[in-house]
Amino acid sequence: MIRKGRLFTPGPTQLLPSAQLAMAAATMHHRTAEFRALYTRVLADLKTFVGTKNDVVMFTASGTGAMEAAVANLTSPGDKVLIVSAGKFGERWEGLAKAYGCQYETVRAPYGETVTPQQVRDAVKPEHKVLYMQATESSTGVRHDVKEIARLVKGTDTLLVVDAITGLGTTHFDADAWGIDVLIGGSQKAVMVPPGLAYCSVSERAWQRMETAKNPRYYFDLRKERKNGAKGESSYTPSTALVAALAAALDYIREQGGGDLAAGRKLLIDNAETAAAMTRAAAKALGLKLFSGSSSGAALTAIAAPDGVDSSDIVKAFRNRFGAIVANGQGEMKGQLIRIAHLGYYDYLDTIAAIGALEQVLAEMGIPIEFGAGLKAAQQVYAETTQPAMAAR
Amino acid sequence: MIRKGRLFTPGPTQLLPSAQLAMAAATMHHRTAEFRALYTRVLADLKTFVGTKNDVVMFTASGTGAMEAAVANLTSPGDKVLIVSAGKFGERWEGLAKAYGCQYETVRAPYGETVTPQQVRDAVKPEHKVLYMQATESSTGVRHDVKEIARLVKGTDTLLVVDAITGLGTTHFDADAWGIDVLIGGSQKAVMVPPGLAYCSVSERAWQRMETAKNPRYYFDLRKERKNGAKGESSYTPSTALVAALAAALDYIREQGGGDLAAGRKLLIDNAETAAAMTRAAAKALGLKLFSGSSSGAALTAIAAPDGVDSSDIVKAFRNRFGAIVANGQGEMKGQLIRIAHLGYYDYLDTIAAIGALEQVLAEMGIPIEFGAGLKAAQQVYAETTQPAMAAR
Repeated sequence: MIRKGRLFTPGPTQLLPSAQLAMAAATMHHRTAEFRALYTRVLADLKTFVGTKNDVVMFTASGTGAMEAAVANLTSPGDKVLIVSAGKFGERWEGLAKAYGCQYETVRAPYGETVTPQQVRDAVKPEHKVLYMQATESSTGVRHDVKEIARLVKGTDTLLVVDAITGLGTTHFDADAWGIDVLIGGSQKAVMVPPGLAYCSVSERAWQRMETAKNPRYYFDLRKERKNGAKGESSYTPSTALVAALAAALDYIREQGGGDLAAGRKLLIDNAETAAAMTRAAAKALGLKLFSGSSSGAALTAIAAPDGVDSSDIVKAFRNRFGAIVANGQGEMKGQLIRIAHLGYYDYLDTIAAIGALEQVLAEMGIPIEFGAGLKAAQQVYAETTQPAMAAR
Repeated sequence: MIRKGRLFTPGPTQLLPSAQLAMAAATMHHRTAEFRALYTRVLADLKTFVGTKNDVVMFTASGTGAMEAAVANLTSPGDKVLIVSAGKFGERWEGLAKAYGCQYETVRAPYGETVTPQQVRDAVKPEHKVLYMQATESSTGVRHDVKEIARLVKGTDTLLVVDAITGLGTTHFDADAWGIDVLIGGSQKAVMVPPGLAYCSVSERAWQRMETAKNPRYYFDLRKERKNGAKGESSYTPSTALVAALAAALDYIREQGGGDLAAGRKLLIDNAETAAAMTRAAAKALGLKLFSGSSSGAALTAIAAPDGVDSSDIVKAFRNRFGAIVANGQGEMKGQLIRIAHLGYYDYLDTIAAIGALEQVLAEMGIPIEFGAGLKAAQQVYAETTQPAMAAR
């Protein structure tokens, strides 16, 4: 049969057509009133999307660029920082801390599990200048308890930096009330546009920290970017096409929320939750093991490969048979799990179709599954979630 | 959940992204060497796609435009013609024959059934100048036995005109060997581009008939269009964007066939056959009645609404709940059936997803169905069709 190219990966995610059109049509120069108006609007919308009163700055970079900004701008060589790591992206904080000469300690959880607030409580000390963590660890799909961890450092001198690249649009945050100093997002996630834009909100006390932080920064200089952003400018040539795409995507999310961007973000989270619940019910009904169990966020579902199966073969079969890309495990988990995304532009039809494809792939590999068993479980979850009248049947 | 806009209708059908891009990018003027080269290539490719050595001409019009051309150019007022009608599009031949002053007789089958070759044999007379028929009747999905009916008029003075607007790319034809004088196609069907282009192949004896046919024609003048087409021109301003889209779609079909357009067309037909078989197995497993039974072609599946249900409500539920458009019955069948398309750009994931949505819609309407029953049947058909090793399990 025809194989359409489809992304079921937790970044990049499936693209929003109106954002693709806006991207294709964007021809404006970045030092014009037209672009300044667009950029100003996007930065304002991102504040709403992040859910903060703090300023938001944006870089033309992948999400890692904003992670680097949160290290380079907030630390000096020799600073002690605490890192919460539950996978490959936690390890990225370690790589950044090392690159910038910080003395880091890591509170760690094995892949597939979360670092608990209790672990953080035991590890955090007043001397830690910054606590770096992921909201959702994309390599396994687990979601940290950001709210509880934030409570531990609120009112102390330890800044809280949260990589919510996968978490934004899949998790509820109250950044200002919880005291998140830097909350980081990326364009290729729940906001449905291609990779290339990173953004973060920055709190007042984080801005103050930058006055004394001595690590070098140039492209990722947050203060310079904030200053230019206030004028509708980026410090260096921005990806105008991606900014136009992001504007269109934020418009779409607002429209879904009946003109309210925050309400649209809530619907987006609910959407991911429903797709995740369908996929997890299906996996269980097929006798598969969820890799990350009850600590999974809504962004993606990590499914352990059946015994004796290399998950790389499942990934290949999805691609070869259906043109659909699902993600393999990352880092030390490669070959052990597959990851199916729910964040962003996935609907019921995408979700049920991915489950059908999963059944076909497993059957073809000789895994004993009953056709329709996963699909039936997903159908029931969908009906119960979205048709309350049916739940009692 | 998010509702993506999706077309499961038998024209317009789901669009091919590369054709959409080509359409969006087309800025050429139609009286230039660049466009002449494109137009020449598309006409040549359409010959291959139709599967004929006859010249193909194209109009900027919906398919009905080429149907009108086949009446206006081949008949004179008072001519006797025979019409094969099994639904709304058969009736369109009657409307055209009437408009052009032909004396028409109709061999008719009820909606959902086909006109048999025997019926045609009993009705056709030497005095019939033209026999007009559909390959596939889009209003019900039935497929006529074009090969057998063609045998009845081959070597007689009765020209054979076949509306294959829905049939091309879903049915095998051997136009020249069977003696089809005019074979008609449209852009919004298996060739995956928006409505707006109609094309037809025309045999030598049909060209000769035009020398004496006296009905008026201007925009739909086949001879004028053939003459200009030979120069890479259309007689009147063509839809350049749609021509560019069609060129890209034909390229895609050729690419699927490993560089062979005819082989790609065969794969396209196989694709529709598999999607149709999946959908029909699902409908039966859900206790639904196929409206057109064993005479259904691969282009679409017409499913009778369950007793006491207005199919308009099913169509509405698909749209409201999923943003997916399925077709209602047409003409006298409105309210009695739904039609789900398979022709063109539909893959396994689309097909399984449409079946999942059908289960949800029926359940929501209170029809007693078992979730997963239709999906399971479709999964089995897909596995048996595409994984021969599994058929014996």
